[in-house]
Amino acid sequence: MKFKVKHSSDFARCSSLELRRGSIQTPAFMPVGTNGTVKGLSVDDLKETGSEIILGNTYHLMLRPGDENIKKLGGLHKFMNWNNPILTDSGGFQVWSLGELVKISEEGVRFSSPYDGKKIFMTPENSINIQENLGSDIVMMFDECTDYPSTFENAKSSMELSMRWAARCKKAHKTDSALFGIVQGGMYTDLREQSLMELLEIETDGIALGGLSVGESKEEKLEILAFMSEKLPIEKPRYLMGVGRPEDIVEAVRYGIDMFDCVLPTRNARNGQLFTSEGVLNIRNAPYKMSDNPIDKNCYCKVCKNYSRAYLNHLDRTNEMLGSMLSTYHNIFYYQSLMKDIRNAIKNNIFAKFLKDFYNSRNLDMPEGPI
Amino acid sequence: MKFKVKHSSDFARCSSLELRRGSIQTPAFMPVGTNGTVKGLSVDDLKETGSEIILGNTYHLMLRPGDENIKKLGGLHKFMNWNNPILTDSGGFQVWSLGELVKISEEGVRFSSPYDGKKIFMTPENSINIQENLGSDIVMMFDECTDYPSTFENAKSSMELSMRWAARCKKAHKTDSALFGIVQGGMYTDLREQSLMELLEIETDGIALGGLSVGESKEEKLEILAFMSEKLPIEKPRYLMGVGRPEDIVEAVRYGIDMFDCVLPTRNARNGQLFTSEGVLNIRNAPYKMSDNPIDKNCYCKVCKNYSRAYLNHLDRTNEMLGSMLSTYHNIFYYQSLMKDIRNAIKNNIFAKFLKDFYNSRNLDMPEGPI
Repeated sequence: MKFKVKHSSDFARCSSLELRRGSIQTPAFMPVGTNGTVKGLSVDDLKETGSEIILGNTYHLMLRPGDENIKKLGGLHKFMNWNNPILTDSGGFQVWSLGELVKISEEGVRFSSPYDGKKIFMTPENSINIQENLGSDIVMMFDECTDYPSTFENAKSSMELSMRWAARCKKAHKTDSALFGIVQGGMYTDLREQSLMELLEIETDGIALGGLSVGESKEEKLEILAFMSEKLPIEKPRYLMGVGRPEDIVEAVRYGIDMFDCVLPTRNARNGQLFTSEGVLNIRNAPYKMSDNPIDKNCYCKVCKNYSRAYLNHLDRTNEMLGSMLSTYHNIFYYQSLMKDIRNAIKNNIFAKFLKDFYNSRNLDMPEGPI
Repeated sequence: MKFKVKHSSDFARCSSLELRRGSIQTPAFMPVGTNGTVKGLSVDDLKETGSEIILGNTYHLMLRPGDENIKKLGGLHKFMNWNNPILTDSGGFQVWSLGELVKISEEGVRFSSPYDGKKIFMTPENSINIQENLGSDIVMMFDECTDYPSTFENAKSSMELSMRWAARCKKAHKTDSALFGIVQGGMYTDLREQSLMELLEIETDGIALGGLSVGESKEEKLEILAFMSEKLPIEKPRYLMGVGRPEDIVEAVRYGIDMFDCVLPTRNARNGQLFTSEGVLNIRNAPYKMSDNPIDKNCYCKVCKNYSRAYLNHLDRTNEMLGSMLSTYHNIFYYQSLMKDIRNAIKNNIFAKFLKDFYNSRNLDMPEGPI
């Protein structure tokens, strides 16, 4: 893996990240392909939207069809016909989301498959092994996501467990995939710093921020981001996991984040929520029934070029699959256009202006922050 | 409308049908686009499969979003971004399918919208008007589908009602769209002949056979087809409504049919049933879970080129939209390839060999018949 910062504007930066299956430009958004498919999009669609890397879910794929099966079938890339980079999560977050159904010990986590009840014991070592079976280009370390809210003591012991697991992940990682560590520590900046220092000691190719977007306020999240922006090493890619809305992404880029993933553009598309240059539009609303306008007059995607809001409203009302397909395409295209605009603004040294325009066009107040 | 028979082989023929939005080659298969979309396919997909004309459902579109609304939005072609020919059915068959909920009189049919309970009175005149509002290229006459089974008396009075309606449709038809009449008469050949003679008197651009695929045996259907093949005028296109399986289409072409529509390739795709050169394959079956083979080794579609049976099995098991999208693409591609093979065989005067190979590869007995 090679990472090169090409342009920067205060903390914000525009970089290239070279992985074994090709290069990606950052800041980058990774659409989520839970079951070996980004819901509603063909791989050609994905490429058309400008997506250069996608995320695969270890937890879902290990259960169905199984990572060993995917390995036998030639790996996840071949299986789903996507020959560009894939980042896989570690499965830790999904297991953590099972809540009471999970038993966590020093060794790992024990839970039952929701599909066949089979007992599964997942350890840092087999999370890495599963991700390598899938053929991941960026392997994420297996961690425990800290609860929100959490006392200092609980956040500390949870983070320390994640760091012991991180050392085991490093040892288990054998291939030429990139390996990213995950900073935990809840809302406590000194724990976040301790976690980062331990990961730098262990030496990982990239650094992710975990345990954000789990219920904390926007102010708490920005406080952690602001703190981390001063501490993160410049030479490693930074990934803010599970974030978020366009305004969350823009804010995080301002604090130096390079990579993002989120189910919002895909999931919301299936619920009729469309992202536009003027904010979110709910296509189910009655006024769109007879609107001959495109979703977003400022968007150049094939959906906005060829279809009216009235048609999308109709497809939604009649529960037609094409509605989800076109809405998802538009939303991912919108996210990727936003990332491209961000990269161009940093490259051309007009990121401050970009920020101002972004907030103005959405009638949002721009938060205090760098730049 | 211009129709030209270019090649023939006994009753089977290969023709071109020139409509106001472009020409189509026959024998042709028309994918069904119930709600202004062929379920699971983009219009680009549809074109890639070789589809030159699609079917729109008057009944569904008049209820949602409403034909007047579609007219205001620029017509069905613009609404759904399909600029090639569209045939619309008359709505009669769907209304007839409502069964007891419908009240039929000389004037027309009365029923309630299943969406909002609104009382609707549909007449031959407004069926034509609705189809013209949609902007149909081939308008179908409004008829009553004869029940199966039916006594001679009932079949006769039903057919005679349809013929009186046909005369009213002809009068109501004002645009340069093509107008097709529908032969009824149930399983009674003399009623079928009487119906045809009346339609020829009325003068319609094409002739459809209705009331088949409503529960009758294969033998009964072939008897009607064989009888009609001797009676139908050579110079008009012939459309067998709602048929069918690949073997039904091949048989009907043998008896001189030019046009087909059916929900089988689209509906069955969503249920995991895939059409192949060796017969039907159910992708849900366990043996496909680990199969690295394509759906059909003899198919050149992008699904067969890029994906394994294992992947499609996985998408079906995880209920992923992409499973329906890829399966529908393959099935429509398969149907259109079959139509192309049929046309080429007739063109090259090897239709007899085509028939033999078709039945052999599927381990089916070839029925007696022409050629």
